[in-house]
Amino acid sequence: MSSENVTENCLGWAAGDPSGVLSPYKFSRRAPGSDDVSLTITHCGICHADVLWPRNQFGDSNYPLVPGHEIVGIVKEVGSNVKGFKVGDHVGVGPYINSCKHCKFCDDRQENCCENGFVLTFNAIDEDGTITKGGFSTFIVVHQRFCFRIPDNYPLAAAAPLLCAGITCYSPMMRYKMNQPGKSLGVIGLGGLGHMAVKFGKAFGLNITVFSTSVSKKDDALNLLGADKFVISSDLQQMTALANSYDFMIDTTSGDHPFDPYLSLLKITGLYVLVGAMEEVRFNTLNFIMGMKTITGSVMGGTKETQEMIDFCAANGIYPEIEIIPIQYVNEALERMENKDVKYRFVIDIANSMK
Amino acid sequence: MSSENVTENCLGWAAGDPSGVLSPYKFSRRAPGSDDVSLTITHCGICHADVLWPRNQFGDSNYPLVPGHEIVGIVKEVGSNVKGFKVGDHVGVGPYINSCKHCKFCDDRQENCCENGFVLTFNAIDEDGTITKGGFSTFIVVHQRFCFRIPDNYPLAAAAPLLCAGITCYSPMMRYKMNQPGKSLGVIGLGGLGHMAVKFGKAFGLNITVFSTSVSKKDDALNLLGADKFVISSDLQQMTALANSYDFMIDTTSGDHPFDPYLSLLKITGLYVLVGAMEEVRFNTLNFIMGMKTITGSVMGGTKETQEMIDFCAANGIYPEIEIIPIQYVNEALERMENKDVKYRFVIDIANSMK
Repeated sequence: MSSENVTENCLGWAAGDPSGVLSPYKFSRRAPGSDDVSLTITHCGICHADVLWPRNQFGDSNYPLVPGHEIVGIVKEVGSNVKGFKVGDHVGVGPYINSCKHCKFCDDRQENCCENGFVLTFNAIDEDGTITKGGFSTFIVVHQRFCFRIPDNYPLAAAAPLLCAGITCYSPMMRYKMNQPGKSLGVIGLGGLGHMAVKFGKAFGLNITVFSTSVSKKDDALNLLGADKFVISSDLQQMTALANSYDFMIDTTSGDHPFDPYLSLLKITGLYVLVGAMEEVRFNTLNFIMGMKTITGSVMGGTKETQEMIDFCAANGIYPEIEIIPIQYVNEALERMENKDVKYRFVIDIANSMK
Repeated sequence: MSSENVTENCLGWAAGDPSGVLSPYKFSRRAPGSDDVSLTITHCGICHADVLWPRNQFGDSNYPLVPGHEIVGIVKEVGSNVKGFKVGDHVGVGPYINSCKHCKFCDDRQENCCENGFVLTFNAIDEDGTITKGGFSTFIVVHQRFCFRIPDNYPLAAAAPLLCAGITCYSPMMRYKMNQPGKSLGVIGLGGLGHMAVKFGKAFGLNITVFSTSVSKKDDALNLLGADKFVISSDLQQMTALANSYDFMIDTTSGDHPFDPYLSLLKITGLYVLVGAMEEVRFNTLNFIMGMKTITGSVMGGTKETQEMIDFCAANGIYPEIEIIPIQYVNEALERMENKDVKYRFVIDIANSMK
């Protein structure tokens, strides 16, 4: 897919069609404007979205499609108005690289709720009409507002998953005051998102139970991540014994599943947060209404809380569990993600494998 | 069903079997204890629950079953510890007449969330082991905590529906800060609950749209109740035009219906409150999660907010729309409720028809 046109200043890996198979692809990125930061990408995490969009799962994929929105790197150039970033700084870019910047949510730096629509980091139409291209590439240029500081002592590779998996869990956990020591949290699903929810929950002093369909996750849940309890969700006896036990549940699964068994685990006035990508929610209302329960959806986080989350991780020694891979392994990694065979996030070593 | 036993000091109307047909029935109520208020019932509203339980809709009905939990009357006797009530006072009793009184919710006077279970006003097991009997009866004895002051200038008949329909809407509207002038509220269904939601919403200064399946409600919605807009929910064109328009939706319907058309009407971070009695909720998650939307269930209200709500209604001239009937009409009224043929609450004139 590459060519030798001089404007094609960036090397990426792109899907060319709904097979979703990625291969090298050269394209053009703009020169940094006065408010822009240009960064050399060192690492990029692989999120479930990087599996879905290359395969045109939502019918809106624009090819060639360069995935990647858990981006970290080193500043190589800044525009004249840029404050807070200088050449050589460690920085990150997350799932969106623009928003309207003037609605009530943007004013509050909750750009993930932008009333006029944020611009996703890949496969979206940017304000100049071009299609955004993600972090499976050598560099990226973004408005300073959508760029985050990575503390020097935080490993760049480990920082990558914070930009999506991390903030996707941290944001609702903070919004709904899950950071109260002693409260109980059920984490449904132990993948990229779920393992971050456990890590944050432990840092907040929560009592955590991991619910999984796979007994193979038990040892990691309890010993690697420090969860207090591990429950196989098909174990009716254990599930029944835990009725009315949890203040919060966070559902990180990406497949459809019954909801009533989990909703029944919530205490009265308990909260169930959906951050995964299942298709449908379906539940009986009697227990839900009588129990004054709540279900809420959450996606990503705002720029203010994203920076807070990164700083919180650095201050508390919270590091995602990652498997570092070269870009040449990316198609196999996507297959393995489809098969839930990853503990717990792939991170592409862009700097050393994409030259 | 009546007999002449001297302990049978109270006349009620009861269902004797799942036909749900009510007829006169004499039974015994306890003498007031030191914390009790005994009241002569003057009026009792008819709630949807009074249709469902006599017919054993939930399989847990205890016969003979005396319905009624929108009770108002006049104090005839008080126990030695009773403060705040004296003989002759106008008072009300709602859907529950006991709770544990010591859990964190009871401590906060949110007894409708009682962790150890509140005691419903009828068909529940009271702390003395007897089955509670409701307000389709000449008098009732309740702990003072579960008794409310009705201001002297508030018509007793109109006060009855406040005790369940009123508080069921008011409680979530206050909890979720729907009392912000200028915010937009969609009220789904215009019955006993829905018409109270409109009245409260107007008092709060909200911009209100009523969603109904019945065009016959349009004139009342706009002219009697003062809603700003009326939409037939099957009108796809109107529904589509209203996408992303509402801060809040309150669903007062009692039958199953599609949820996605209504959820799509919510703004980003919008809230959907379920207070009706539908069986199942089912919706697609993509719009829900991306829109950071929330669904919550709510049932009744606590004693503190119930008194606040009554006082708010008195202060703001909020009166339910009622049709006053004699007890002898109750079975026909229950049939009419089943057919949604009531504007908007039946209130039984107990004092004048049950002697």
